[in-house]
Amino acid sequence: MTGPPLPPQSALLTDLYQLTMLQTYVEQGMEEPAVFEFFVRKLPAHRGFLLAAGLEQVIEYLETLRFSDWELDWLKTSGKVSASFVDYLARLRFGGDVQAMPEGTPLFPNEPVLRLIAPLPQAQLVETRLINLLHFQTAIASKAARLVLLAQGKPLIDFGLRRAHGAEAGLLAARASYLAGFVGTATVLAGAQFNIPVYGTMAHSFVQAHTDESDAFERFARSHPDNVVLLLDTYDTEAAAEKVVALAPRLTQRGITITGVRLDSGDLAAHARQVRRILDDGGLRHVQILASGNIDEAALRRLVEAEAPIDAFAVGTHVTTSSDAPYMDCAYKLQEYAGRPCRKRSEGKATWPGRKQVYRTYGPDGRMAGDIVTLESDTQDGTALLQPVMQAGKRLTAPRQPADIRASIAGALAHIPEPLRTLQDGAPYPVRISQALQDLAASVDRGR
Amino acid sequence: MTGPPLPPQSALLTDLYQLTMLQTYVEQGMEEPAVFEFFVRKLPAHRGFLLAAGLEQVIEYLETLRFSDWELDWLKTSGKVSASFVDYLARLRFGGDVQAMPEGTPLFPNEPVLRLIAPLPQAQLVETRLINLLHFQTAIASKAARLVLLAQGKPLIDFGLRRAHGAEAGLLAARASYLAGFVGTATVLAGAQFNIPVYGTMAHSFVQAHTDESDAFERFARSHPDNVVLLLDTYDTEAAAEKVVALAPRLTQRGITITGVRLDSGDLAAHARQVRRILDDGGLRHVQILASGNIDEAALRRLVEAEAPIDAFAVGTHVTTSSDAPYMDCAYKLQEYAGRPCRKRSEGKATWPGRKQVYRTYGPDGRMAGDIVTLESDTQDGTALLQPVMQAGKRLTAPRQPADIRASIAGALAHIPEPLRTLQDGAPYPVRISQALQDLAASVDRGR
Repeated sequence: MTGPPLPPQSALLTDLYQLTMLQTYVEQGMEEPAVFEFFVRKLPAHRGFLLAAGLEQVIEYLETLRFSDWELDWLKTSGKVSASFVDYLARLRFGGDVQAMPEGTPLFPNEPVLRLIAPLPQAQLVETRLINLLHFQTAIASKAARLVLLAQGKPLIDFGLRRAHGAEAGLLAARASYLAGFVGTATVLAGAQFNIPVYGTMAHSFVQAHTDESDAFERFARSHPDNVVLLLDTYDTEAAAEKVVALAPRLTQRGITITGVRLDSGDLAAHARQVRRILDDGGLRHVQILASGNIDEAALRRLVEAEAPIDAFAVGTHVTTSSDAPYMDCAYKLQEYAGRPCRKRSEGKATWPGRKQVYRTYGPDGRMAGDIVTLESDTQDGTALLQPVMQAGKRLTAPRQPADIRASIAGALAHIPEPLRTLQDGAPYPVRISQALQDLAASVDRGR
Repeated sequence: MTGPPLPPQSALLTDLYQLTMLQTYVEQGMEEPAVFEFFVRKLPAHRGFLLAAGLEQVIEYLETLRFSDWELDWLKTSGKVSASFVDYLARLRFGGDVQAMPEGTPLFPNEPVLRLIAPLPQAQLVETRLINLLHFQTAIASKAARLVLLAQGKPLIDFGLRRAHGAEAGLLAARASYLAGFVGTATVLAGAQFNIPVYGTMAHSFVQAHTDESDAFERFARSHPDNVVLLLDTYDTEAAAEKVVALAPRLTQRGITITGVRLDSGDLAAHARQVRRILDDGGLRHVQILASGNIDEAALRRLVEAEAPIDAFAVGTHVTTSSDAPYMDCAYKLQEYAGRPCRKRSEGKATWPGRKQVYRTYGPDGRMAGDIVTLESDTQDGTALLQPVMQAGKRLTAPRQPADIRASIAGALAHIPEPLRTLQDGAPYPVRISQALQDLAASVDRGR
């Protein structure tokens, strides 16, 4: 068995202006080292923190970046760039250095999450896909973490492939939500590709395809004796629960145990209570109740606070689209070129210049107490968050397994201060810009 | 030159429960024809209509569906399904019939957009990816159409790959927004894959990498004499416009014409007016102004209503994520199995049974006047919207080119009634459920 193919990469997965600018850089001999940093400008509404995610896919992309023959041919015939520049692209590889926050690190606005140093054309070309990968998984991991905190230990499963934005979104959302603490996903390919636990039940169509609901349940159980989770709401939820009770003894005679039932519509708390009573009265105390159907943070909190007898939740669309905040204001910006710090000063989008580092300190209770963003050369107290991950185009350490990242995130979530964990806006986490960095910015502005 | 590779497909791009159910179907010999329909349950808030999109990718998926060796191996070792069922999957191909609304058809809640008839296992397996493809592109095309209507003929360009949800989302959003009337995209691979016009300018980093802004502009112009669009807001927008005026004569001597300038921050209307005056006073009346930066429907409407002298707009994140409505309530449901109509009656999610067709009538002004959803056998006045697109697993007609679909959508938009075109909620478009369909639903309910 060979593993699944790597996620498809294409060097053309970029904006045209990257190629246009690269051609000028190359023609002008502008291939000195450039320092770019990826950061988030501000938190989405009602988010107290974000979780870094997507670094593993960025490393894969940078390591394998090259233009294929058909891509070079297409560029030649497109007339968008010169023939000699296409020859340059044929030889282009990524040979730069990358420092980054490990996946799962809580992050805040203006903190560099990733810093990339490479000859200007290489550093520029990768902007689009690098943002594309970091932005999406960070958004999803951050959304998923909110749900995990609300669930208070109850398992959450990703059911969201069908309404994710395409195939890659579904796969990477399964990964990002698993990192953040979900127990697994329904997406089979995500299980195969990322070694994530895969879960499944049955659909309404299964019940409908049978003329009799009890018959559907029995056939399913006999076909999958190890994992019998029956869907109750195709016609009448409580009537279906009674059928489960009636069916159980027949299955027991065959050595088959019903594992769980799923509720997918209506007032989930009310149905869960009624179904729990029917199951318990029928001697099926061991049968777990899984709830699904349009569950977001508000619905999950209501169900948890109401102490609805639900054992696990499946979350779909809301987690795979980060429905309340489907995008974040983030950027990848040039901070230094050929040893010269630089910044843009566009209204509302000014950047901090230079190579930066973030230091995080913790309080006596072990909770995060505050961050300081400063220059790499200006060592501060606390833990330095950016760590080397690539050197001269090669990764420095073996790929981290999603299960390992997930374990470290579980630890990190415990260190997040209480006010940031809620769904409401509270006092923001303190992030200071160091004096050294402010001085450099002033100096860059004077020097222009 | 070979074309770009087909979009990656994997038969594992599905929910586990599809495989679980399939195994039971196969074990029970339940391989009679099943009729599934894809439909939208309700419109997102503030949407008057949706545009069908994504059919071409569904046809490609169905035509090429098969389990690869590693996928079969993975399934065997996963323990999720039986070994004999894996052998069945190795032989599985899609051999069904599909009827669908052509891409670009305006659609409304409860209208079947696609109907698929195939042996139950085939029809069930494809549910997840089929929804994934139709849902996303329909959402994006519908969002893009709103922007196109608001732009009143001014060109719109997709700049949104970086914040799209992964690679496929960026590519398919470029396609869907182009279908809806955008003039093109910045995403190079979308240009190569779908034959969409590709546009590009320059980034702030380009200006920053130079020590002098005028120097950056001149180098860019000399490197790309055919397409000189200069970015003005890296430091000071109006000062940059003065530099463009000063530079123009030097470029003219070399036979180079400045095509346009781009504004990306601040009050775009105010900057556009000032820049327009500076350019005009400097004899650069032919230089066009392109605006970008967080443009959504509200911003676009303000700029158009203010008659800001902006010639074209680049829209990014808001179109590729459909930011205000990143998902729709839609489903793919079993309506008939082995000749027996069926429906689910879950609370709030009941479905209409049977094989259906939608008829659309038009008023004397040529505008759409109303639809009726009825049974396929119940012919009505008007245009039948579902058309055959696949038979016995093969497509019936050649792939439609995006440019052709785009032209037909431009025509379709002209037929949309005025109240549906605005950003406000108004009276919904009339969609009737025929008496024949209501009678069948009542009969199905009685028969259970």
